[in-house]
Amino acid sequence: EEVAKLLALKAKLNENEPAAPLKFTLKTPKGTRDYAPEQMTLRQSVLNTIVSVFKKHGADTIDTPVFELKEVLTGKYGEDSKLIYDLKDQGGEILSMRYDLTVPLARYLAMNKVSNIKRYHIAKVYRRDNPAMTKGRYREFYQCDFDIAGTYDPMLPDAECVKVVSEILSSLDIGAFVIKLNHRKLLDGMFEACGVPAEKFRTICSAVDKLDKSPWEDVKKEMIDEKGLDDATANKIGEYVRLNGGEELVDKLLTDEKLKKVKSAVAGLEDMKLLLKYCKIFNVMHQVRFDLSLARGLDYYTGVIYEAVLLNQEKKRKKDEETEIGSVAGGGRYDNLVGMFDSKGKQVPCVGVSIGVERVFAIIEAKNAANKTKIRTSEIQIFVASAHKGLHEKRLEILSKLWDGGIKAEHSYKSNPKLLAQLQYCEEQQIPFALVLGDSELERGVIKLRDVVTRKEEEIPLDNLVEAIKWRLSNKGYN
Amino acid sequence: EEVAKLLALKAKLNENEPAAPLKFTLKTPKGTRDYAPEQMTLRQSVLNTIVSVFKKHGADTIDTPVFELKEVLTGKYGEDSKLIYDLKDQGGEILSMRYDLTVPLARYLAMNKVSNIKRYHIAKVYRRDNPAMTKGRYREFYQCDFDIAGTYDPMLPDAECVKVVSEILSSLDIGAFVIKLNHRKLLDGMFEACGVPAEKFRTICSAVDKLDKSPWEDVKKEMIDEKGLDDATANKIGEYVRLNGGEELVDKLLTDEKLKKVKSAVAGLEDMKLLLKYCKIFNVMHQVRFDLSLARGLDYYTGVIYEAVLLNQEKKRKKDEETEIGSVAGGGRYDNLVGMFDSKGKQVPCVGVSIGVERVFAIIEAKNAANKTKIRTSEIQIFVASAHKGLHEKRLEILSKLWDGGIKAEHSYKSNPKLLAQLQYCEEQQIPFALVLGDSELERGVIKLRDVVTRKEEEIPLDNLVEAIKWRLSNKGYN
Repeated sequence: EEVAKLLALKAKLNENEPAAPLKFTLKTPKGTRDYAPEQMTLRQSVLNTIVSVFKKHGADTIDTPVFELKEVLTGKYGEDSKLIYDLKDQGGEILSMRYDLTVPLARYLAMNKVSNIKRYHIAKVYRRDNPAMTKGRYREFYQCDFDIAGTYDPMLPDAECVKVVSEILSSLDIGAFVIKLNHRKLLDGMFEACGVPAEKFRTICSAVDKLDKSPWEDVKKEMIDEKGLDDATANKIGEYVRLNGGEELVDKLLTDEKLKKVKSAVAGLEDMKLLLKYCKIFNVMHQVRFDLSLARGLDYYTGVIYEAVLLNQEKKRKKDEETEIGSVAGGGRYDNLVGMFDSKGKQVPCVGVSIGVERVFAIIEAKNAANKTKIRTSEIQIFVASAHKGLHEKRLEILSKLWDGGIKAEHSYKSNPKLLAQLQYCEEQQIPFALVLGDSELERGVIKLRDVVTRKEEEIPLDNLVEAIKWRLSNKGYN
Repeated sequence: EEVAKLLALKAKLNENEPAAPLKFTLKTPKGTRDYAPEQMTLRQSVLNTIVSVFKKHGADTIDTPVFELKEVLTGKYGEDSKLIYDLKDQGGEILSMRYDLTVPLARYLAMNKVSNIKRYHIAKVYRRDNPAMTKGRYREFYQCDFDIAGTYDPMLPDAECVKVVSEILSSLDIGAFVIKLNHRKLLDGMFEACGVPAEKFRTICSAVDKLDKSPWEDVKKEMIDEKGLDDATANKIGEYVRLNGGEELVDKLLTDEKLKKVKSAVAGLEDMKLLLKYCKIFNVMHQVRFDLSLARGLDYYTGVIYEAVLLNQEKKRKKDEETEIGSVAGGGRYDNLVGMFDSKGKQVPCVGVSIGVERVFAIIEAKNAANKTKIRTSEIQIFVASAHKGLHEKRLEILSKLWDGGIKAEHSYKSNPKLLAQLQYCEEQQIPFALVLGDSELERGVIKLRDVVTRKEEEIPLDNLVEAIKWRLSNKGYN
């Protein structure tokens, strides 16, 4: 505070001199970054595409605070809880930054006694991780979630989530993808059938979850050395998790000697059968794969789980297998999370998907960089220029008319800018039109209108300015 | 973590029984709240209106992290620094939640060596205040800022900010308003002319800032009792700060015996003269008032300052004076803030305004509540209903066609919902059309389309479904 006063005083005394030099390295916090106008424009365009799909499916949107009572987050994220950002105890409640949008949704549903909602939520979440920022992973990042909460008939909301992911990824122009599907009950039933003790289901599930990045031999080693399975049990798991396919695989597993004896495996398979049937009706079977190696890390899933991955189309590495180049969506059913927040333990079954928008942004940014695509950040339709000195008040008068008429317009904030500089600015900024004010035209009641791309000029009457410009803009497809 | 595992295990064992009861009171953190779909819909509509004005003036948008290095915020907010939220020291950098969007902008400009930008930024900021939540004031709230940074000719960007505020407040339908204008150099010059010692300028400025809420007698008392002015000095200030008007007041003050001797007072008045001239060209003089009592709390202003207040039109309280009912925008010029972040102290002059969107939201929410306006939160255009049992797969098939055709459609997630319940839902949700599937029509290759408002029904052919519905939607003005 004292420093501020002194600095203010100093600034007053030496108004045209530089301020005191900075005493610390200027940066954003570790793992975070600023978004420049080009990045924001791309982001908003991607998010608009995604939101339009959510709205097509009738989703509302909600928002929740960026932090929650620490107790709300406690016991929801297993080992990852250590990555939660806590706020300083400044007297009062103990708070933590939200870690995802799912737990805040569950808290919202329980607190407000909402028993059904179809909602999307796009917001930043916070993880005190050590992410590889070069790979587009940050400590502060956007999540973009779509969830359907409510007690409904089997697989109807679950199948719609698959359709939503398919529509979004198809409309984003990021290449071919596959939506992998599996079921927590089937995973648990499979572990039971292989002889894994019940208390090890979740930790073995975490090991299986690594199969997208590690070979089976490494995962098997972890199961045996770190998680205490015997070799035979691990091998049995290994046979199952290497299976993937479609409806025919479900039918095959329903007759599997080991699985058909386990109640939860059969329940999971029946769900999968219905889900795949609905996927077929939704015309998305070509983008879907039932994959027993899909596990997903989070503890709270209880039913169907999803993960969409992009496929590398450029070079199919070995055999005819397409290689996967990263997850772009994921989710699943979590029927028991809301009840953890209800004073009477009342459950609200939920299913949802999260679009990996940061990954999508990174892919499109890389593509634009490779193609040297220049993104236009402003929507200015016309630049009001002076051909010579002394016209800045006239410019303001014209601008005011254009703005009042709903036209997107700007000018130079210099009283007497050079004409060439003004026209160059229009070309750099890809502004379609320039009005070039000059005394000789103004005396005749007209202004020169210049098409910035063709450089053709015409005179338009001052008393019909707004309409004339609007007409030309709409001819060019601007609105 | 152990708790989570036990809960998961328990949930597995008793899947249809309620979860363990909650051990703490379920709430959002003090001073924060959730936004329900109705609130979000209103918010997005207001923000769209505001953003369209920003874009009309060619503004880009940027985003910055929700927290900053603590040092970035230190020494910028004077007495209010105690309201900053700090993050817990979890090893690593010491962070604080952003307190406004202006200091992050200045940090952004200095760090990225940006010497000119016209940008808007809409984001939440955090103040550990004890706000009156009933009055729409919170600890987490949106700010909505428009700023022009760069070295330009006098008052050109400053006047455009006034125009932007005028356009926004005029388009929001929240009633009559006045944009008060003053100048920090004039205030300082006036204090100097009245005999206030230089080191007391800022604290006396804070006292003047209270004149919108407190009568002059109380402010004078504070100046004398708490801030150590003598009675004569306070009285001189009192004479000035009660003045307000337009260009004629500027001219009068330029000939004021005391003021015309003080360099900064004359500089401020010359700026004001130019600003009011430009405001006249922009056709906003009827919404503008030069007001010597306007001071604004923040230390970093160096030039023009703005504040827009709504006027109470219902009952003019006394005489013919309109009473003010709260600030809805504010801002000013801050030429020395960016230099505080530059390693060589290089300055980037800035001017900007912040729209009080939380106040605007509260006003429109209150208006809607009074008028019992029902806000539609979803954009669904057609509901796909079953007239009888056994049609849910056919519904999915139809839905898939509609979604693929870009039509916003939904259905019940029950396999066999009651027809009446489905039609009631359409009326409650104000969905314009319902498709009512029935075997007898399907056999003939048609479906019943129902206009939900008029309840008129017609049959449309299945093989022309999407086009037929699109045509009817566009006839009703939906797209």
